[in-house]
Amino acid sequence: MGQLLRVQNFNVSRDGFGAGENQSLERPFGHADPAEMFAWAGATASWPNRTEPGGTRGLDDYFTRDFHNNIGAEIMGRNKFGPQRGPWRDHDWRGWWGEEPPFHTPVFVVTHHLRPSFILSDTTFHFVSGDPADVLDQARAVADGKDVRLGGGATIVRQFLDADLIDTLHVAVSPLELGRGSRLWESPEELEDRFEHEVVPSPSGVTHHLFWR
Amino acid sequence: MGQLLRVQNFNVSRDGFGAGENQSLERPFGHADPAEMFAWAGATASWPNRTEPGGTRGLDDYFTRDFHNNIGAEIMGRNKFGPQRGPWRDHDWRGWWGEEPPFHTPVFVVTHHLRPSFILSDTTFHFVSGDPADVLDQARAVADGKDVRLGGGATIVRQFLDADLIDTLHVAVSPLELGRGSRLWESPEELEDRFEHEVVPSPSGVTHHLFWR
Repeated sequence: MGQLLRVQNFNVSRDGFGAGENQSLERPFGHADPAEMFAWAGATASWPNRTEPGGTRGLDDYFTRDFHNNIGAEIMGRNKFGPQRGPWRDHDWRGWWGEEPPFHTPVFVVTHHLRPSFILSDTTFHFVSGDPADVLDQARAVADGKDVRLGGGATIVRQFLDADLIDTLHVAVSPLELGRGSRLWESPEELEDRFEHEVVPSPSGVTHHLFWR
Repeated sequence: MGQLLRVQNFNVSRDGFGAGENQSLERPFGHADPAEMFAWAGATASWPNRTEPGGTRGLDDYFTRDFHNNIGAEIMGRNKFGPQRGPWRDHDWRGWWGEEPPFHTPVFVVTHHLRPSFILSDTTFHFVSGDPADVLDQARAVADGKDVRLGGGATIVRQFLDADLIDTLHVAVSPLELGRGSRLWESPEELEDRFEHEVVPSPSGVTHHLFWR
């Protein structure tokens, strides 16, 4: 089956934005409210950031439960890693996720501004430049034969779509409008020339879009 | 979160039958046609019995893909293991699945008629009697901290439902009628007094019913 490149649980607004405008340390998703965007995922039993027991085990849980399933590495954009833009002022910032990041695999942060790798618990962060195909090769090489997750944000997903490197894409469309910000698409139908596409409404109010080749 | 007991990808007809009448070596599902019952699953990329590459990666694939996810043991009824009824005439029968069974964990076959355990590839079959709670304890003990799958058929699922031991239950309702055979339910609503219940129609024509506590 090879090592797939999979986008999973990528969340956008009904108008196609993965994050709002003016992202900052205080507002990682800009003017978007992440609690509202990710309400469907946070309610599930398998939400990776869940700290208390409980949660739903219906349809939405199949998506959060699949987050780690056969994943051996993650690629993310620099804007997902942190709020800084441009050259690193220092290396104190080690991601949003505290001492126990939810990845548990090597993570490749794609950036023009390199810095040394570091380890937090069982997650190693590497900083890499290069075109999408090169980065994917590096991630596959350390993924222990497993698939690679492309973690977002919208900009890097667009880059990997443009390079035609994505095998499966799961986008959860939340029932809210953002109007501006970091855009994944104008409409999911844009991808139908290259992908099979299923639309699965969830009882929670989110709509899951599934694309594969 | 503890070790759940999960029923996954259990298939019934629209009128609630998991298999037809007159099961035999030649017709493991009796008068039901398994190719028709399991068409939705067989089409997916992650179908455990798939022998050729390809297959769909839409909604139905999330269900077949979850078959192994965090599962450390399976419990099945004797009628799933083979067509014989009553005392074993010999021990030549080793299941329907050939030399490479799709389980890859210990499997506990519940039967009044015990026989020695045996190993096929990375699956070990044990034959156990006892009430459902005892059998579940045995399966949990060897599941390496993971969940236990209850594999069916309908009779053993009913027994474990009656003993109130099932944590999550996924039933795929295929768009066909069988009229008679081994029955799981009259209607899925029967379980709503004890479980949360979501109904998820798939583009393939099957309807997924998800139950959890």
